[in-house]
Amino acid sequence: MTEKTGRLEQIHDFLLFADRFKQIVRQNYLTDGSRRETDAEHTWHMALYALLLKDELGFDVDIGRTLALILVHDLVEIFAGDTFAYDDAAMADQAAREDEAAKRLFAMLPPDLRDRVDGWWREFEEGRTNEARFARALDRLQAFGQNVVSGGKSWREHGVTRTRTFRRMNEALECDPAIRALVERLYARADVEGSWTPEPA
Amino acid sequence: MTEKTGRLEQIHDFLLFADRFKQIVRQNYLTDGSRRETDAEHTWHMALYALLLKDELGFDVDIGRTLALILVHDLVEIFAGDTFAYDDAAMADQAAREDEAAKRLFAMLPPDLRDRVDGWWREFEEGRTNEARFARALDRLQAFGQNVVSGGKSWREHGVTRTRTFRRMNEALECDPAIRALVERLYARADVEGSWTPEPA
Repeated sequence: MTEKTGRLEQIHDFLLFADRFKQIVRQNYLTDGSRRETDAEHTWHMALYALLLKDELGFDVDIGRTLALILVHDLVEIFAGDTFAYDDAAMADQAAREDEAAKRLFAMLPPDLRDRVDGWWREFEEGRTNEARFARALDRLQAFGQNVVSGGKSWREHGVTRTRTFRRMNEALECDPAIRALVERLYARADVEGSWTPEPA
Repeated sequence: MTEKTGRLEQIHDFLLFADRFKQIVRQNYLTDGSRRETDAEHTWHMALYALLLKDELGFDVDIGRTLALILVHDLVEIFAGDTFAYDDAAMADQAAREDEAAKRLFAMLPPDLRDRVDGWWREFEEGRTNEARFARALDRLQAFGQNVVSGGKSWREHGVTRTRTFRRMNEALECDPAIRALVERLYARADVEGSWTPEPA
């Protein structure tokens, strides 16, 4: 086996292994409420959001880089599992669990690609570049849209109130006026449809 | 409502509607054979293939454009349904059905975005640019990998022989030496594991 072939096969083995991402189930439902969506479905959807919203922003993004961040942003959940955004206990050690998972998962790639994928994942996590800010806002906007259009099914199951969603949605609201307009539109729809768990008295 | 808001909401409505792509089920199984994969999962996986294999090719591709082609390449199946690659009857009128679906689906977007998405979809279908050739080869490589690693489950269900797969895989074999090496590796594995339906005598 040549060195070039060994490298190719290592990348291919990683790609075949990454199939497991389709078995990680999120809390969000499909918009018709029929079942929860998988990480792979969520990620494809976020990527489509990026492609169709990038020119509506008040700042520039490199779309190739944005899509790279999105495509790998949840990949560590193959080992770390999905952490529900409103599960405070699980959120507390999420960073440590995911860091460990990233080391294990990305080490399956040749070193240069390992470093590149790890770099995309960390750039998304840190949320400092324009591409990462946009991608993070879309992560929230996509999930919020699924929750609102499915009538708040996942929120009601977990007792999530309107107030509690603000903590999570703030990053999307502050990213850009276009994203803010869409998030506010979704809040207005959820208000009309009464999709929230009532606030504690 | 301002013109800008109307445009944004139109794009957002399309993105929420595109959730239906997660309900289009393909013939291919997940690698563990537990269930078939959805169009959204297949598309995410192809996009990851593109991201990790683009620098292994003997020709240059614009990764942002490649990913755009991939992200929308099967979107018309929301209306036209999945056409199994080895179903000759369905393949015969596939182009006409998908063209009709494209008109209906992409018309939901503002005209400039409608034309852009339609252009990406047609570029993929025509397969002439480097990006489209690469994306089409990955469409075949990803599906072939799912079939081989799941032990040929979908092929056996549909009586697909080794010979019949060549017609479909030829485009991937001829795209680039790196892709060819990976396809040949999968053929070798399927041969060892005996995953094919026997050839007619």
